[in-house]
Amino acid sequence: MAEAVRIGLLGCGTVGGAVVLLLSQQQEAIAARTGAAIIVTRIAVRDLNRQRNLPIADEVFTTDAQAVVDADDVDIVVELMGGEEPAGTLIMRALERGKPVVTANKLLLARSGHKLYAKAATAGVDLAYEAAVAGAVPIIKPLKESLAGDQVTRVVGILNGTTNFILTQMTEHGADYSTVLKDAQELGYAEADPTADVSGADAAAKCAILASLAFDTIVHADDVFTEGIEQVSATDISVADRLGYVIKLVGIASRCGEEIDVRVHPTFLPKTHPLASVSGAFNAVFVQAEAAGDLMFYGRGAGGEPTASAVLGDIIDVARNLQQNATGPREMMLHASNIRPIGLLQTQYYVLLDVDDQAGVLAGVAAIFGDHNVSIAQVWQEGHEDAAQLVLVTHRAQEQALRATVDGLRTLSGIRRIASVMRVESEVFA
Amino acid sequence: MAEAVRIGLLGCGTVGGAVVLLLSQQQEAIAARTGAAIIVTRIAVRDLNRQRNLPIADEVFTTDAQAVVDADDVDIVVELMGGEEPAGTLIMRALERGKPVVTANKLLLARSGHKLYAKAATAGVDLAYEAAVAGAVPIIKPLKESLAGDQVTRVVGILNGTTNFILTQMTEHGADYSTVLKDAQELGYAEADPTADVSGADAAAKCAILASLAFDTIVHADDVFTEGIEQVSATDISVADRLGYVIKLVGIASRCGEEIDVRVHPTFLPKTHPLASVSGAFNAVFVQAEAAGDLMFYGRGAGGEPTASAVLGDIIDVARNLQQNATGPREMMLHASNIRPIGLLQTQYYVLLDVDDQAGVLAGVAAIFGDHNVSIAQVWQEGHEDAAQLVLVTHRAQEQALRATVDGLRTLSGIRRIASVMRVESEVFA
Repeated sequence: MAEAVRIGLLGCGTVGGAVVLLLSQQQEAIAARTGAAIIVTRIAVRDLNRQRNLPIADEVFTTDAQAVVDADDVDIVVELMGGEEPAGTLIMRALERGKPVVTANKLLLARSGHKLYAKAATAGVDLAYEAAVAGAVPIIKPLKESLAGDQVTRVVGILNGTTNFILTQMTEHGADYSTVLKDAQELGYAEADPTADVSGADAAAKCAILASLAFDTIVHADDVFTEGIEQVSATDISVADRLGYVIKLVGIASRCGEEIDVRVHPTFLPKTHPLASVSGAFNAVFVQAEAAGDLMFYGRGAGGEPTASAVLGDIIDVARNLQQNATGPREMMLHASNIRPIGLLQTQYYVLLDVDDQAGVLAGVAAIFGDHNVSIAQVWQEGHEDAAQLVLVTHRAQEQALRATVDGLRTLSGIRRIASVMRVESEVFA
Repeated sequence: MAEAVRIGLLGCGTVGGAVVLLLSQQQEAIAARTGAAIIVTRIAVRDLNRQRNLPIADEVFTTDAQAVVDADDVDIVVELMGGEEPAGTLIMRALERGKPVVTANKLLLARSGHKLYAKAATAGVDLAYEAAVAGAVPIIKPLKESLAGDQVTRVVGILNGTTNFILTQMTEHGADYSTVLKDAQELGYAEADPTADVSGADAAAKCAILASLAFDTIVHADDVFTEGIEQVSATDISVADRLGYVIKLVGIASRCGEEIDVRVHPTFLPKTHPLASVSGAFNAVFVQAEAAGDLMFYGRGAGGEPTASAVLGDIIDVARNLQQNATGPREMMLHASNIRPIGLLQTQYYVLLDVDDQAGVLAGVAAIFGDHNVSIAQVWQEGHEDAAQLVLVTHRAQEQALRATVDGLRTLSGIRRIASVMRVESEVFA
């Protein structure tokens, strides 16, 4: 056994800095656990002159990331730069050189994970990525290890803290989306350009990683049907509340026979569901497995320290394996998955219509639903002067039938606007 | 690498049977994951004649547990008999012979875990026990591995499904303890002799295991201050509800400087806390760590299949390690812990008094609280004919001061009965 396991860090932003600090604070405890000191020997950064206040000598820093990967005094490469490139090339290079890698790079894994997993397997080294999904929440290890003897049937996750923060604020204060987004940006919960979060793209990447692991198949970020929260209104939230639901942006991945259903969109969730009470910037992943039943994992999905905690857990695992000339479990992604087209989804729907407050409109609406064989579970109309809002919740229906229904509504006189259409998940949790 | 990893099972009740079935259903997936078939070669049972309906040949069964441990065709011993003996001796024997062990035996680990962990370390083999705490919920692995680089400060768990089922029923139906217990027994959620569950002993054993792991120290089941739910009344639950709390039997383990605070008792938890919505027979463990922040793990805490799922996860881990001549992480229990006496606990308290409905009683009660420096946060009196109930919630106070206060109340005229005293956890979650 080596006396020290040497880390080469790629990137030293919020997470990288937190990893360095945590490693130094927990130095003795970690050495006792792994039987070797874990030390950072090289750090690749973009800007050598940035003030960092880390307990690391200046000569450890370099702008040459490839040199860090190649260095003889680096045993494990920890990639925290983010983005697809050059991170992907650097990780591939490390694996090819027989160096295990720890990464938090969800985007890269959601797009090229299967290639990296295959390379790690061929090279006989570890590739660990607990921090890539849901920050500090252990979810990769439970799916890869704890449930290795079980059959996962469904994963539902609140995977993006920014959107959960915004929806929670909208729910608690009855505020509308644009006001809350502005607040979230001022508080640092949302970026100046919030697109990756609010469009659902960030959640979709994480959902792809979880679906791949849960179902032992390749799910690419582009396979995930994705809708963001930009269209969610204060009215939608108050209607949901009255019906016993909260609106959450969730990633859902289910096994449906030979197909995989995988999607990210705002969803009506029953208030009684464990995910419904996950508020603010927290993340949570709900897992259904055949033998284990329902499981949920909850915690901070972002931030320097929480993410660093997960990265360090991985580093310690990988270091222990390295000391023993062993490796952790492998992904079993043998083939691309058969993604079920969104049109074939079967779920319940909520539809909100702005209508003229006059006789016959409801009858016309009901007829169009009936024409498409979409059965209405609940309907409720509220008048505002000469206009009214019509709320409909359907029984389980097929998405393509619902879409055809909505197209039909567009042509109906007396309907001013299709204000909202959203999926309702209730029976699936029964 | 061997072509097959051979399992010797000690005990074949509900969990053992479920493990055998799951292993046979998932045979191919498991072989693909571990690179070897996992097969059950020997099973020790008490009664050879019991009908089992398992896909296992008769000659696999024996009543000689020691022979299973010693057998040349057993690579991993899986102990699912429960109880301290003979399980403890058999596990020790397996470890001494260099055979890794998987167990779900919480009682044994809570009483003799440190000796078994030390023996496993000396022998250089794995001892895995995910199923010993919270059934299917991965909590051992997160504490031992995911948080290995972090510092856990506090663990709070709903660790016993029977008592959580009873308290949930009492809360939902306003029913009293004895009625609900009878229902729970009829439904199979409580045993004919429910003592181990309702007294808190089962939760205390699990709490001891978690505290040991979380704080890298030896915590024995007897170290855990334990109160059961037998005294919780329908009134307590409705008072809690009005004040914004639910009553849960929780195990709490905290690091307090050099001391460990570890206890199991019914507790007022704020309704907004993630643990508050854990209902029915579910278990959940809430973990606070310095870098990771708040985490929660939720799922089924008992039952054949959920427990078997966790056992199988361990078997696969251990088999993979065995194939690589490696072992998983070790417990770091270097010394007995310094348990903080319960008298030094600082928390809030709820006190319910049956009092005479007459002038001066409240003044007398308030004076006694004042005499012991226990400050009252909330007080509320309700009359019922000539009698009344007085509800008090204190600010944070020391347990010994609260106990002295209660002793003082016993001597006060106008007080008919100290109906309830319970701890309130609210600030700690702030």
